[in-house]
Amino acid sequence: MNPKIVLRIISYLLLIVCAFMLTAVAVAISFNEMAEAKTFASVVGVTVFLAGGFLLWVRSSPHSNPSFKDGFLFVTGSWVIVALFGALPFYLSGAIPSFCDAYFETISGFTTTGASILTEIQSLPHSILYWRSLTHWLGGMGIVVLTVAILPLLGVGGLQLVKAEAPGPTVDKITPRITETAKYLWYIYLGMTVVETLMLMFGGMSFIDSLIHTFGTLATGGFSTKNGSVEHFNSAYIDWVITFFMVAAGMNFVLHFRLLTGQARSLLKNSELKAYLLIFAAATLTVAVILSLHEVYPAFKDSLRYAAFQVASILTTTGFVSADYETWPHVAQAILFLLMFIGGCSGSTGGGIKVVRLVTLFKQAVNEMKYLLHPKAIFPLRISGKVVPKNTVYAISGFFFLYIAIVLLVTFAVCLSGVDLLSSLTAALATVGNIGPGFGLVGPTKNYAHFIDPIKWLLSFAMLAGRLELYTVLVLFTPMFWKR
Amino acid sequence: MNPKIVLRIISYLLLIVCAFMLTAVAVAISFNEMAEAKTFASVVGVTVFLAGGFLLWVRSSPHSNPSFKDGFLFVTGSWVIVALFGALPFYLSGAIPSFCDAYFETISGFTTTGASILTEIQSLPHSILYWRSLTHWLGGMGIVVLTVAILPLLGVGGLQLVKAEAPGPTVDKITPRITETAKYLWYIYLGMTVVETLMLMFGGMSFIDSLIHTFGTLATGGFSTKNGSVEHFNSAYIDWVITFFMVAAGMNFVLHFRLLTGQARSLLKNSELKAYLLIFAAATLTVAVILSLHEVYPAFKDSLRYAAFQVASILTTTGFVSADYETWPHVAQAILFLLMFIGGCSGSTGGGIKVVRLVTLFKQAVNEMKYLLHPKAIFPLRISGKVVPKNTVYAISGFFFLYIAIVLLVTFAVCLSGVDLLSSLTAALATVGNIGPGFGLVGPTKNYAHFIDPIKWLLSFAMLAGRLELYTVLVLFTPMFWKR
Repeated sequence: MNPKIVLRIISYLLLIVCAFMLTAVAVAISFNEMAEAKTFASVVGVTVFLAGGFLLWVRSSPHSNPSFKDGFLFVTGSWVIVALFGALPFYLSGAIPSFCDAYFETISGFTTTGASILTEIQSLPHSILYWRSLTHWLGGMGIVVLTVAILPLLGVGGLQLVKAEAPGPTVDKITPRITETAKYLWYIYLGMTVVETLMLMFGGMSFIDSLIHTFGTLATGGFSTKNGSVEHFNSAYIDWVITFFMVAAGMNFVLHFRLLTGQARSLLKNSELKAYLLIFAAATLTVAVILSLHEVYPAFKDSLRYAAFQVASILTTTGFVSADYETWPHVAQAILFLLMFIGGCSGSTGGGIKVVRLVTLFKQAVNEMKYLLHPKAIFPLRISGKVVPKNTVYAISGFFFLYIAIVLLVTFAVCLSGVDLLSSLTAALATVGNIGPGFGLVGPTKNYAHFIDPIKWLLSFAMLAGRLELYTVLVLFTPMFWKR
Repeated sequence: MNPKIVLRIISYLLLIVCAFMLTAVAVAISFNEMAEAKTFASVVGVTVFLAGGFLLWVRSSPHSNPSFKDGFLFVTGSWVIVALFGALPFYLSGAIPSFCDAYFETISGFTTTGASILTEIQSLPHSILYWRSLTHWLGGMGIVVLTVAILPLLGVGGLQLVKAEAPGPTVDKITPRITETAKYLWYIYLGMTVVETLMLMFGGMSFIDSLIHTFGTLATGGFSTKNGSVEHFNSAYIDWVITFFMVAAGMNFVLHFRLLTGQARSLLKNSELKAYLLIFAAATLTVAVILSLHEVYPAFKDSLRYAAFQVASILTTTGFVSADYETWPHVAQAILFLLMFIGGCSGSTGGGIKVVRLVTLFKQAVNEMKYLLHPKAIFPLRISGKVVPKNTVYAISGFFFLYIAIVLLVTFAVCLSGVDLLSSLTAALATVGNIGPGFGLVGPTKNYAHFIDPIKWLLSFAMLAGRLELYTVLVLFTPMFWKR
């Protein structure tokens, strides 16, 4: 291991994030929030001084490539440190007086969880809310993918780093070079950002609200500028636009690339996409019919609108709220609860277990039954027409077990602080799965403010572990990692 | 497939169960419950007539061995039919006026779940309560193991049938012949039954109460003769005796055999046993400390007693209640909730996911992290010192996924009937895991009476699928099974 290399790359990363924080300075100035402008500028100044100074200092040491282990250390380390840096404006500006809270809010932002400790959002300065949601946007595509895209000097180590950030089953290479791939993905992301922002403005939202809600949508984050989340705007048009883009953000961005480059046919073969859209459609229809039968909303089109929005929000792990779903019939709540176990597609900005893993596990369970009947036959497991290697299925099984185990352990820990079982369980699901809201004390009309500090730190860890798909973070806790 | 062979073995099985039902006639007569005696006798008479007649009728057809597929059909079929037969006395005697309820209660008995629809237990005739708990005792060791033990004529097909009934990772052969093994296991079971009954009588329980609670303990069932379950007796001695035998019943019976034959050393090497006892001890201590800190009970020894009892009851999937744990602090409840995901050891009478599977999955998840660091190395997965074949790990992963998926689907279905999320979730866990009580509407002081009939049928199916470890039942729903 070489901590110097790791620190060097993190320094570059901090400089990149500084560049983005400068846009928050611009927002602050444009809204005449001079105190906030100064805070943002100071944080940028100090960071540039420290990170830049470090880079100058290590300039002369040889430029070796990061090793395999360095990759893990770098990825987890960079998220921890970037969140630390990102929390400073909240803390220093006084917007969030407790540092624990500020860190929770920032890691919740970067991991695109959208779990908030803020009880009064609307009265905060625009620039603070802008920065809060910009963390979503940066974290959504992956701050490491960002680094890889912008810093070609990482070259060789790039793929390894990206794999460490998202060790899912399909890190698809759309171009031979990972830096190229990362760039294309960011172009698509940027393009979608422009389109959604314009569409929301067309629906009557202000530019800054449109931008911030677009960040929350495309990153599957969920931070809003309003206390009542998207419900505040009370507009069917806005609900449908956000629903559409949430569903799009929960899809593998490689598929968007294929779609844009005229390879639409490959989408039809994609097992994950088919399962994802099927789940979305089936859950939406079922919830809509239930809402309609219980006459929760006056017309079926309203039921459909609220159902589609909330199903997309939970399934893609966004966490926007357009209706207080805890007042819905139990079975509609149960569907949302089940969706909390699913998540978006691999290669999307969504969190959770992810659809491709569940599809694999399902096919594997069915195969086991076939083996029971024909122990000597061979039943290959195919996803999108390709045979999945046994080792991948192995890794996915391990992931699923770890995921459930960690959710249950976090549930237990939250209960330790005196919280009831359902609130604890859904808080665990909502943080490890990067969703945001859950049920009970963390329900759609409540938030994470009331937890004691140790629980907030634990949930911050849970959000990070969930975002980095568990293994990347947990491997740091194995003795083997630290053995020479 | 050969339905005639399957029906023939089921007929034998019914005759065996009839022999046991005759003891219920004896109990009825001894308590002067003549109406019940007549009911039991009539059911026995009609069954002997039908099953015996069928056997005479097919007497002349050749005695071929059951095939692989016949095994699955026989195992699931025999449980369904034996429960149907076992439900008749409840229904015909008028003790349970609804047939759906009677079937639910019987399948809950045979699968050793202990979920009840009876709201008033104490006023029922002794013979009815005796039969209700005898189903536990018969189902605990497995009615198929019973058949195999008593019917040597099954010969070759025996192991296959036992494997279909308990397709867990370790069907250990303690003797070369499966019929011998099955017999030894039943001897141990019988011996423990005698000892526990005597010990409970020594604590002041009547003979019939002692016997019935012994059935409930050793089968990890949970049916009691009192409305307040074991809490009714309010005796530390009785609580500790039952706790001890619950823990013993949750252990692999092969280990009891080894212990009795002086092979105690092999127990120390058993990974599953170590994990099981560790979980029991750790959970008990933690709950006891929590109860003590919250001053729920006057002295620490009381906290320890109630903690040990309830932890053992949920962990081993027995479901006896000695305290209303829903009044305990949230975190103590959370521990019980976590235990609902574990279950007893393989080869025990307990249900649930089972400890050996979780140990395997945990080791597999740790191995995955090692592979992440050393992709080309080989890390064998050892349980009790032996390397577990990859295919077994595969099957266990599939099982774990199916288990969670089925629990969530049952949760959804129960919610459909208007029940809240936590009650539905724990009802699903408590039935698929053969536990009995859960939280909320199925909490320790409540039961399953209030569910609508379709949900009772569904939960009956869930109990059966859980008891037969999912695959055995689910394989019947694959098209491949019915293909020639």
